[in-house]
Amino acid sequence: MLIILRKGCTVRRLGFTPLPVPGADRTAICVTGNRGAVDASSLAHLPGVLECIPVTRPYKMVSREVHAESTIVRVGEVAIGGGEPVVVAGPCSVETEARTLRIAEEVKAAGAVMFRAGAFKPRTSPYAFQGLGREGLVTLRKVREQVGLPVVSELVDNADLEAMCEHVDLIQVGARNMQNYALLKRLAEARRPVLLKRGMSATLEEWLMAAEYLLAGGNGQVVLCERGIRTFDDHARNTLDLNVVPLVRRVSHLPILVDPSHGVGERDRVRPMSRAALAAGAHGLLIETHTEPDQAYSDGQQTIDVATLRGILGDIAVLKGLESMAAS
Amino acid sequence: MLIILRKGCTVRRLGFTPLPVPGADRTAICVTGNRGAVDASSLAHLPGVLECIPVTRPYKMVSREVHAESTIVRVGEVAIGGGEPVVVAGPCSVETEARTLRIAEEVKAAGAVMFRAGAFKPRTSPYAFQGLGREGLVTLRKVREQVGLPVVSELVDNADLEAMCEHVDLIQVGARNMQNYALLKRLAEARRPVLLKRGMSATLEEWLMAAEYLLAGGNGQVVLCERGIRTFDDHARNTLDLNVVPLVRRVSHLPILVDPSHGVGERDRVRPMSRAALAAGAHGLLIETHTEPDQAYSDGQQTIDVATLRGILGDIAVLKGLESMAAS
Amino acid sequence: MLIILRKGCTVRRLGFTPLPVPGADRTAICVTGNRGAVDASSLAHLPGVLECIPVTRPYKMVSREVHAESTIVRVGEVAIGGGEPVVVAGPCSVETEARTLRIAEEVKAAGAVMFRAGAFKPRTSPYAFQGLGREGLVTLRKVREQVGLPVVSELVDNADLEAMCEHVDLIQVGARNMQNYALLKRLAEARRPVLLKRGMSATLEEWLMAAEYLLAGGNGQVVLCERGIRTFDDHARNTLDLNVVPLVRRVSHLPILVDPSHGVGERDRVRPMSRAALAAGAHGLLIETHTEPDQAYSDGQQTIDVATLRGILGDIAVLKGLESMAAS
Amino acid sequence: MLIILRKGCTVRRLGFTPLPVPGADRTAICVTGNRGAVDASSLAHLPGVLECIPVTRPYKMVSREVHAESTIVRVGEVAIGGGEPVVVAGPCSVETEARTLRIAEEVKAAGAVMFRAGAFKPRTSPYAFQGLGREGLVTLRKVREQVGLPVVSELVDNADLEAMCEHVDLIQVGARNMQNYALLKRLAEARRPVLLKRGMSATLEEWLMAAEYLLAGGNGQVVLCERGIRTFDDHARNTLDLNVVPLVRRVSHLPILVDPSHGVGERDRVRPMSRAALAAGAHGLLIETHTEPDQAYSDGQQTIDVATLRGILGDIAVLKGLESMAAS
Repeated sequence: MLIILRKGCTVRRLGFTPLPVPGADRTAICVTGNRGAVDASSLAHLPGVLECIPVTRPYKMVSREVHAESTIVRVGEVAIGGGEPVVVAGPCSVETEARTLRIAEEVKAAGAVMFRAGAFKPRTSPYAFQGLGREGLVTLRKVREQVGLPVVSELVDNADLEAMCEHVDLIQVGARNMQNYALLKRLAEARRPVLLKRGMSATLEEWLMAAEYLLAGGNGQVVLCERGIRTFDDHARNTLDLNVVPLVRRVSHLPILVDPSHGVGERDRVRPMSRAALAAGAHGLLIETHTEPDQAYSDGQQTIDVATLRGILGDIAVLKGLESMAAS
Repeated sequence: MLIILRKGCTVRRLGFTPLPVPGADRTAICVTGNRGAVDASSLAHLPGVLECIPVTRPYKMVSREVHAESTIVRVGEVAIGGGEPVVVAGPCSVETEARTLRIAEEVKAAGAVMFRAGAFKPRTSPYAFQGLGREGLVTLRKVREQVGLPVVSELVDNADLEAMCEHVDLIQVGARNMQNYALLKRLAEARRPVLLKRGMSATLEEWLMAAEYLLAGGNGQVVLCERGIRTFDDHARNTLDLNVVPLVRRVSHLPILVDPSHGVGERDRVRPMSRAALAAGAHGLLIETHTEPDQAYSDGQQTIDVATLRGILGDIAVLKGLESMAAS
Repeated sequence: MLIILRKGCTVRRLGFTPLPVPGADRTAICVTGNRGAVDASSLAHLPGVLECIPVTRPYKMVSREVHAESTIVRVGEVAIGGGEPVVVAGPCSVETEARTLRIAEEVKAAGAVMFRAGAFKPRTSPYAFQGLGREGLVTLRKVREQVGLPVVSELVDNADLEAMCEHVDLIQVGARNMQNYALLKRLAEARRPVLLKRGMSATLEEWLMAAEYLLAGGNGQVVLCERGIRTFDDHARNTLDLNVVPLVRRVSHLPILVDPSHGVGERDRVRPMSRAALAAGAHGLLIETHTEPDQAYSDGQQTIDVATLRGILGDIAVLKGLESMAAS
Repeated sequence: MLIILRKGCTVRRLGFTPLPVPGADRTAICVTGNRGAVDASSLAHLPGVLECIPVTRPYKMVSREVHAESTIVRVGEVAIGGGEPVVVAGPCSVETEARTLRIAEEVKAAGAVMFRAGAFKPRTSPYAFQGLGREGLVTLRKVREQVGLPVVSELVDNADLEAMCEHVDLIQVGARNMQNYALLKRLAEARRPVLLKRGMSATLEEWLMAAEYLLAGGNGQVVLCERGIRTFDDHARNTLDLNVVPLVRRVSHLPILVDPSHGVGERDRVRPMSRAALAAGAHGLLIETHTEPDQAYSDGQQTIDVATLRGILGDIAVLKGLESMAAS
């Protein structure tokens, strides 16, 4: 914490070690050696204080400063954050059992190593399809058992956590729930691998702090997922923030996936943005894929077909030719 | 729904009534008489389709088109949305019982008609003070019983809903949980008055759709609360969006409060923004107030003292001189 | 400037006075006594440097720290920044001479003290009406001479500066040109009062730095004007940022107007937002007004009629009852 | 234009061909065959009108609908928009002649085909280095003559246009001037190749409309350049919007470069974002490069060294293995 004082002012009795640094027009006070954050609000209104500038990063356990080695999250036989880019594919929602299994077979054949589909769908409208619920979870377990792909699906209510743990391999926290701390606290205890999507308007710090809830609660199996942020831009559903990818790789040891489907929101741009995400350094992709995208229960506009998925897998083979980036 | 086609294209067998409108370069198809939303994703990728434009508003029960008369939400003896601006004041967090009661006495004496304080605090950091929890709820009930003010407090976990219903008069859904549909669905069933804060990056439509979850679930006692949105602006904690106030009053029958404390995030600007909010047409204010703001458990930087609260009450007396705005 | 070092690192030979402040995990270096900004780029990549944090504010002459007394800008007999709120009204564009004069007469009768209308219109589309140009300037001079109102109009090209100086009393720099430094440099030399609108995505600092170009170039007659910023919000043309008003009043000595017409972009919300702007502490308003708004050459959707303008003048009489805010 | 009416209302005497489309609760009116945009403001306030929805795209000449074949802009012997990705490199500002020539030699040796450096620098602060001006232009001509690279540099004032045309091959319009229509109109007449950077908060439509000013004025040699947009994000100087790249390629025939230096604003992330930009489909890159980045006159924090540039050229060789995307 750095405290800026009006010239001629001093601060006493703060209870930690202040080190004054007089300048021409102002005096700065460096607060050091404090354990935990110094609460700026108790300082900002003392007479003479012009400004308080926090210096220490608030996140600890997610930070590479604290944990230098890259974390690899294992979901079944899949290693996320290892050398190999991971492709997770599947429809937005779990659909009929037959169709869901067929999609799973096809995305597996195309090269996907994990299956995604929502049993519980958080929808903006109460009148929109809300997912098949527990029936959908049963279908997901069949995907795991019959097709042999681990599955990822979103948790929206702690009441479903136990059932999720039984049927799902990687539990997703969606963008809308990134700061649902009740959910995060229970997931920390559940000790299952978690896919933590970035909130629509979350800063990097807020996102990493949400992950910190999981690690601080005892669950280190966390995969981050960039899925686009909300900006003034109106040409895409969201603005995919690929700038964050090499930065996350530098400041945190956690692996990071990118969801180009929500990140751009339009089917025709999913493949170029998938390429871009991997080129920026993502450890893998989460892609809405369907055998018949126009028939999808939800999000059809941003869902690609299996042929496009195969194209993306082909792109990955090319992109592996890029030398790994020491800097990121 | 309006579908724009490339010139020379036609659409058949859509299953609803299309009315073609040929233009010079494109053809538009108006889809009418559909019950429920037409799913654009099933149309956007048909050959020849350039664009699909939704026309109907997605919200129904919150809309003034459906329910013309303004809703007044009654919390104890307080009427929110009636003619009189309502001032809700209190500290960010419930503190010790003695201090909380003293603050409540003082804000009541200053003219506040409801008390606010958080027992459960959703905090960005897992290491920050998370509120006193159920012990805080007991203190809030004492405020109601001993001071005689109804109380508003935030629910962050369905597990606490029953206790909240017992101790709290108006249950707040915070900005981070605006799209926590599990919470909204339970609150719809609980039939208690709800204060629904706008999410940090929620559009008006998303906010009203969150309210629609409550109304569609059977709970019409909903108060909206604008608390600032997230923008590029770095001079305030949030950007208070007062433009939304007269619009909410026009398109919805629900009452709307403004929270200038989070909306600007700095103590010195709370009073001018309180004035502005009321001048824009808000039905009342939610203001973080403390007898000793510098000693507040949380959010002290944006917490005003009781003298400033008295000043705001005095401002209200002046602002009542404004003739009511037919347009808003 | 504060430089954060990895633990155990030191910095030498920087050419200014560094004062090291060792912390538990990092070392901070306070750079003081430097004249002019320290260029962070020369420091940020030295080995061991984790971060560089600027501390000094970059603006000088616009700052209240440097110039404590509030500036009053005089345009004809109008004092902007004095005790009295100033209302500037008129159509978006200069129209026919007869109609422009009639509008001027009517807004004067309603209580406006200055006339606004654009002779040169910066339009997003090259095919849209671009203003009447120099012919429009002649009309504006007639407003000044025949109606007796000083006039404000926008400069978009240095080639027109001389003509503008001859016909116009207050020269507007529009939002799109806030960082057109070629224009600002010439206006600094012209020594005419300038109305500097905030850019669509300008931070407070960038806006004040644009004003600093004028003051540093010798022109202290600068009026700031908030006109809404660009955000994700889609319910209004812009997001009117009233939070900035009390802050500008605190950190700068320059007067500030608000343009609710562009700030909300919809006729029906101009009056409530005018009230709100004044309640937040604005020194006046810039309002698009027309005798027949539906016939306006441009921006008719956000143009109010004269009756609404009279209503706003009536509101001002009420708002004067608010005690002046020491804090802002 | 689509006009939505309250049920039971009709619109007469509009002066163009309305085609009513009655729905269950509202009536839609399709306006067709109009030449030029229908002014919504003359309609939005007619009694019974609920909403006006524009349908036709406002840009014409930049659109692929109008001009299907991709445009290749030739600058000297360089073809921008052809099959080969183009790398433009050089320092932020023109520096001493000796150093500038040395940098040019080195970036050419690394594989760059064009040189960039600013002679006129638009700076936020009036106290910051504003570029070497015309002296810098002379240096740029020497780069062209002695090193053999065409040069791109920014125009900030029409007064310098003639000199720019003499010394510079590709004239840049910077982000701050994207809507400086006085500049665009003169550049349209100058008939020189123009590099049009996207404004900090420009929508795709506004950006293409700025290009339309150039094409409508007779200058079809326009290269677009994405350089990051302004969002709430605080982890990078700007948010590089790669989503826009495949969309620009689809809706417009103009070539598009990406500037990762401003787009991320941090040296260490320039290489991954360069890869990502090309993977998304950009026709080339504009990269701030210096032989000694820490000694750069400006923007050193985001300037890469020549070794990193060579790495990026190596990446391009790999990325050429990606099959071209039919969809974009």
